Amino acid sequence: MTRWKLVIEYDGTGFVGWQRQDNGPSVQEAMERAVKAFCGEDAVVWCAGRTDAGVHALGQVAHLDIEKSTTARTVRDAINQHLKPLPIAVLSAEPVDAQFHARLSARRRLYRYRIVNRRAPLAIERNRAWHVPYALDADAMRAAAQALVGRHDFSTFRASLCQAKSPVKTLDELSVARDGEEITVTARARSFLHHQVRNMVGTLSLVGRGKWTSADVASALAAKDRTKGGPTAPPEGLYLVEVGY
Amino acid sequence: MTRWKLVIEYDGTGFVGWQRQDNGPSVQEAMERAVKAFCGEDAVVWCAGRTDAGVHALGQVAHLDIEKSTTARTVRDAINQHLKPLPIAVLSAEPVDAQFHARLSARRRLYRYRIVNRRAPLAIERNRAWHVPYALDADAMRAAAQALVGRHDFSTFRASLCQAKSPVKTLDELSVARDGEEITVTARARSFLHHQVRNMVGTLSLVGRGKWTSADVASALAAKDRTKGGPTAPPEGLYLVEVGY
Repeated sequence: MTRWKLVIEYDGTGFVGWQRQDNGPSVQEAMERAVKAFCGEDAVVWCAGRTDAGVHALGQVAHLDIEKSTTARTVRDAINQHLKPLPIAVLSAEPVDAQFHARLSARRRLYRYRIVNRRAPLAIERNRAWHVPYALDADAMRAAAQALVGRHDFSTFRASLCQAKSPVKTLDELSVARDGEEITVTARARSFLHHQVRNMVGTLSLVGRGKWTSADVASALAAKDRTKGGPTAPPEGLYLVEVGY
Repeated sequence: MTRWKLVIEYDGTGFVGWQRQDNGPSVQEAMERAVKAFCGEDAVVWCAGRTDAGVHALGQVAHLDIEKSTTARTVRDAINQHLKPLPIAVLSAEPVDAQFHARLSARRRLYRYRIVNRRAPLAIERNRAWHVPYALDADAMRAAAQALVGRHDFSTFRASLCQAKSPVKTLDELSVARDGEEITVTARARSFLHHQVRNMVGTLSLVGRGKWTSADVASALAAKDRTKGGPTAPPEGLYLVEVGY
């Protein structure tokens, strides 16, 4: 038996999220079907970050065990062949030792959140970014984001369904950059709470709009209470970019 | 009556192209319907570049005449409202004088062609770039492109259906740049022949693959014969970026 590490890209638009659910197509189910079609085995595909419905991945990492003796190139190409026509692509496959676990071994997760800040609706970037039609001050958002960097109790930015044991996390980076009409928020940590990035971005959007100050963000964090935080930014702007081990 | 200049973005994937046709939905038809829904008038919407099926626009320019007295903001927002849910967006509207013509007044057109050069299929960028799974040498493509810059008879890169009076055009820029797995070809000219950009990109891809040399590209140009050129690159990689007046 060989354990394989896969790096996966997907457009999350038409999926209920990574995880298998009864209410619609999931990325996990699509992956497991493609693996079955390739080698006939019922492998479970474990991922590093269980993305929600509509959230995208440029570098999701997953692992699975298969009995079939084969090459990395075949694993990648055969799974891709069986994934057609779904918008999921295995970028690379490599054999790893049996201790490797996509989720438990991960030491760093990098997410990017894309906002297109303009009056006109999105055409090319529809479903691939959050459309914010009112003016956002990215400099104010950048300054306010600094209050969230570091080790904190992030209960204010935690979804009620979150299964993490502790709300305390260390946020290594939360940067905000504007390039023309696009604002990108980059978030990096060992791990995140459920909806943490989207809740932080939604809160920063209040600062960008001039409704909140940096001090309001710091107060919201200190409150350790989800009802004191800003709204949850929509899923279509979020990308799981990279997982480090 | 006021003549309005519009800048328009669209995802060309589901359209038969800009121009009205009997065989499917066109961007022009969608625009004219939205204008009619907004002001009740049967205005013809004229564009700067009649993009083909599947070709995108980030900055198509169009003009139309309407009787209704209104503001630029209303023209933009009302047409966008009536375009929903199509992936077409009016980025800006401005009143222009009656001599302005989107196509005839244009002095510069800028196209970008996106290639994603990797083994794995496309997920996020599907229908938004040309997927080339074999290795391309972008430096060789860049060097070969120089043979095409300048004033030439571009018959070798002209679609048989092209309606231009003359095959002689001046190509002001044809640059090739690689950024990771993405190769971007930028083409700038006062005007282009039908399929000219896609035929030039298809030909350069032969150079990138090592099948053709720069000298082969120069010979093909000199032959003034479409059968001596390379293949037509697919529409999904092409974007009309900007039209200058």
